[in-house]
Amino acid sequence: MALVSLTVSAQFGPPRENPKVPSVVANVVEDFKPASTNQDNKPYPMVNSQRMVRAQIKAPEATFVGLDIAGKIYIMTKDENGVWTGTSEPQDEGFHYYQLNIDGASVPDPGSKYYYGASRWGSGIDVPAADEDFYTVKNVPQGSVNEVYYWSTVQEKMRHGYIYLPAEYYSNPTKKFPVLYLQHGMGENETGWSAQGKTGIIMDNLIAEGKAVPFIIFMDNGLDTRRPGDPSPEEMRRQFAGQRPPQGGRPGGRPNFGNFFEAFQQILLTDIIPMVEKNYRVIADTEHRAMAGLSMGGMQTHGITLANPTTFAYVGMFSGGTFTVDELKDAADFKKTNKVLFMSAGGRETRMAEGDGSVMKAAENLKALGYNAHGYVSPETAHEWQTWRRSLYQFAQLIFK
Amino acid sequence: MALVSLTVSAQFGPPRENPKVPSVVANVVEDFKPASTNQDNKPYPMVNSQRMVRAQIKAPEATFVGLDIAGKIYIMTKDENGVWTGTSEPQDEGFHYYQLNIDGASVPDPGSKYYYGASRWGSGIDVPAADEDFYTVKNVPQGSVNEVYYWSTVQEKMRHGYIYLPAEYYSNPTKKFPVLYLQHGMGENETGWSAQGKTGIIMDNLIAEGKAVPFIIFMDNGLDTRRPGDPSPEEMRRQFAGQRPPQGGRPGGRPNFGNFFEAFQQILLTDIIPMVEKNYRVIADTEHRAMAGLSMGGMQTHGITLANPTTFAYVGMFSGGTFTVDELKDAADFKKTNKVLFMSAGGRETRMAEGDGSVMKAAENLKALGYNAHGYVSPETAHEWQTWRRSLYQFAQLIFK
Repeated sequence: MALVSLTVSAQFGPPRENPKVPSVVANVVEDFKPASTNQDNKPYPMVNSQRMVRAQIKAPEATFVGLDIAGKIYIMTKDENGVWTGTSEPQDEGFHYYQLNIDGASVPDPGSKYYYGASRWGSGIDVPAADEDFYTVKNVPQGSVNEVYYWSTVQEKMRHGYIYLPAEYYSNPTKKFPVLYLQHGMGENETGWSAQGKTGIIMDNLIAEGKAVPFIIFMDNGLDTRRPGDPSPEEMRRQFAGQRPPQGGRPGGRPNFGNFFEAFQQILLTDIIPMVEKNYRVIADTEHRAMAGLSMGGMQTHGITLANPTTFAYVGMFSGGTFTVDELKDAADFKKTNKVLFMSAGGRETRMAEGDGSVMKAAENLKALGYNAHGYVSPETAHEWQTWRRSLYQFAQLIFK
Repeated sequence: MALVSLTVSAQFGPPRENPKVPSVVANVVEDFKPASTNQDNKPYPMVNSQRMVRAQIKAPEATFVGLDIAGKIYIMTKDENGVWTGTSEPQDEGFHYYQLNIDGASVPDPGSKYYYGASRWGSGIDVPAADEDFYTVKNVPQGSVNEVYYWSTVQEKMRHGYIYLPAEYYSNPTKKFPVLYLQHGMGENETGWSAQGKTGIIMDNLIAEGKAVPFIIFMDNGLDTRRPGDPSPEEMRRQFAGQRPPQGGRPGGRPNFGNFFEAFQQILLTDIIPMVEKNYRVIADTEHRAMAGLSMGGMQTHGITLANPTTFAYVGMFSGGTFTVDELKDAADFKKTNKVLFMSAGGRETRMAEGDGSVMKAAENLKALGYNAHGYVSPETAHEWQTWRRSLYQFAQLIFK
């Protein structure tokens, strides 16, 4: 299994300060427009046709303000009215988390909407993409993303998730639907797939074009898994930090995620799936049940579908590594059950996108074993949401058919 | 009509800087706990048993940091690690918007979750209340709050709203339900009632206790009303600012809200109600249709229900003024149609809570005219969400019965 330590080390590594670099001033095309992710009527942040991000904030008494995005803090400059402005280098297409730094305080930009990632609610910005049409709201039959609370017998508390119901769920009140269980990554939560992931919009568009069959998606929190008696989050962080692979190096082995992979599996099988199959019009069998996830959610998908080989017929790992020939060559139940095995990565995630460890090579190897395996590499994107929007778009067209 | 200019002037008045006051240090009970509105695992802000709010942020290079809440900026102090801390005076029970000020920049507190109000996404804090049980998530049959996009023929664009569907909507797939159209206030949007208003939680609890009948609630954006050809938001602000009543004074007359009251009425009647009645299992008649709103949303309710007297059988104005005897004494259609007329205010909204202009006096006067009128005053709350949570709790028990 090719492990991805990017978000993992971002989450569990020591607090880092990104390097401060000058704001970009040369060769800047002055066609900046407010980002689509801005708060209503807020002009900043802006993006230009070079995909540079420009931030602005009034901070008359500050001595330093920086735009902290993609691992660098761009030093902003103050005008005579106390307004600071700064411009980043070109960013990849798609969604990025970012923040402002004001005299050493890392804070959300008051101009942007807020998203949960990197273990905090904070600023995000969508950089226009050539293929953004597939995640743009259109006047097509609309499903809905619904906020749901439910009781967890495992945790003995109310949990919180989101369910996507396709338009036909409302218009055809006797029809039953398949279900995809779809998980976020490390440092994210149950809001990620619908907010920055645009799940509902992607699905409504795909279904309207006849490219995907209508299905339900349940999106839950894969990190909120502590059971009575489990170690505290602090203890789990300590356990995990002791085992994480060296920065940038090849992981020495599979990390021990403490109890939380096992706990999420228990919650999914004991609480989530039975609740969904009880409360919604669901075709409650293996052939109409899928699981997928991004990064850590892909690793959870990997572990849970292997450990429960007859529960899910469709499996997707987005930037979460690969299934290997060793794991699957003698997995008779998994092989009999599985109808689609999908593995994807961003083109800039070199280890997963290129060479012998790539998702394409893994798919080729698994096809040779007789699996309906698919690899997908998102062009020119990293371990970020544009990769995962595109992965969902691809995966959704393959399943329940 | 008793007008409320509080949120209106907050929205349209000149930018104000709240006065800076010392952080509270004397007679502080040191039993602070993280607020329920905090981001997961964030210790600050905290609230103590005196309902004081304590904020904390690391800003090592800053020369000033303040906690900006309820019209004052509490001056925070820095420790040797560059961490700033400050404590406010006691706050009212319930939800309050707030922000931090770092060297002149007004920014969200990275510790809190974010809510839309005061015309921005920013920090909010829930101060524990003696009656918070009614808006606490419980293990009862759960409805859901659903995010919905739909086409507006009036605006020629996709709009965005939220619909609350009660648990029985899912469990009883042939039953049809009444609908309440529920509007937010000035500077807020369609997210307010479900997020800080806790609408779904309040309704699930009320229905589980048998105190309210199950009904649907649609929550839309009452400020996103610009139609092709309408003046720009900047122009509307200018029109409105020229007519707003003097600060603290008695309004000289009913303000001209530009085109946007009329536009919202058109969108509600042409787009929203037909969409809800087409896409959901709704009893589509006057006796099963209600409208209510808070502050500006109450004024919209007032205007729209008067202008369309046979469309809504149940009407609620929360901190939005009153219906007067003059308006209703000869309103034959309105009187024949109306089954409940509900008017509420916070106890600290003196003009609406006490004396001849109060909601209680208005209800008394309207009862004498033969209306089923109800007044309600929320104890010791101002023009804030605790007043409106309680108002919904009261109103929901009266309607569709």
